[in-house]
Amino acid sequence: MSTREREEMRQQVIRLFNQAHIVLTEEEQGRIEIADFGLGDYQTTGLGLITYVNNDLYCAKELALLPNQTCPEHRHPPIGAIPGKTETFRCRWGKVWLYVEGEPTEPIQARIPDEGRAYYTVFHEIELTPGQQYTIPPNTLHWFQAADDGAIVSEFSTTSRDEFDIFTNPNVVRVP
Amino acid sequence: MSTREREEMRQQVIRLFNQAHIVLTEEEQGRIEIADFGLGDYQTTGLGLITYVNNDLYCAKELALLPNQTCPEHRHPPIGAIPGKTETFRCRWGKVWLYVEGEPTEPIQARIPDEGRAYYTVFHEIELTPGQQYTIPPNTLHWFQAADDGAIVSEFSTTSRDEFDIFTNPNVVRVP
Repeated sequence: MSTREREEMRQQVIRLFNQAHIVLTEEEQGRIEIADFGLGDYQTTGLGLITYVNNDLYCAKELALLPNQTCPEHRHPPIGAIPGKTETFRCRWGKVWLYVEGEPTEPIQARIPDEGRAYYTVFHEIELTPGQQYTIPPNTLHWFQAADDGAIVSEFSTTSRDEFDIFTNPNVVRVP
Repeated sequence: MSTREREEMRQQVIRLFNQAHIVLTEEEQGRIEIADFGLGDYQTTGLGLITYVNNDLYCAKELALLPNQTCPEHRHPPIGAIPGKTETFRCRWGKVWLYVEGEPTEPIQARIPDEGRAYYTVFHEIELTPGQQYTIPPNTLHWFQAADDGAIVSEFSTTSRDEFDIFTNPNVVRVP
């Protein structure tokens, strides 16, 4: 992604936060992470993130999904003696479909992206609308997609160590 | 507080969450905690709370302060081998003045409540407006007060064990 494209995406994410009445400082707006997972098609497979706090004990982020945007399937493995990340997703605005391990839902509501279709393998669907939340246990495969308006999701969790995330799609690069 | 008074206070807190565009489910609205700290004057010294998640690892709450309402001074001590709670306060709406140990600010902007005035002992002021946040280390004395419009504060922290909180005012009862 070019610097200009990245900046355009950041502005889209800021508009989404504004729509959801989530206030970020100027400094935070400037460090919104535009993650395209190395797949080069951010609007289809990507995630906007702002990390409020990530210390040795806990982490809180706000996630922004553009309309129909997908965060690809991954899990948070243990790192040595430290268990994998436990995370609670709380929908604040819009609608998001979360898929985790378990009984597959048929049919699912999300449209699996063509790019990397084979790397979506868990289909137990949880629909989250504002005020609804779900806690994902450590080392559990999951992916999620926003509905037509996009979505804002608060993430409360143990410490984030994104560089250790394991993506099902081997072409994904989480931390460039 | 009578059941009717408590219910009236809960409705005020719900209105504050609505003003701040914080969406709670019906179930959550029903379990908003109206903490008057056993002092019997909720609008002066009190706090509205909704706990989103509180597991063995982390906790996330939303705090609601009515106009000029004060949460009295306290700290989160270690419990056996477990360090005291670390917590990050993020202002979402309104304005809040947070007071912690350290160089006293003079003059402070908050008005110390007459009731229990002697039990406010730390005066290092941190003003938080929407998007601003502050992390309070374990076992640190702190208290906070909303400005004239009230305030909504997100709290991200380690596990909450409110029943172990130590209040400077010996008349406080945190968990009735």
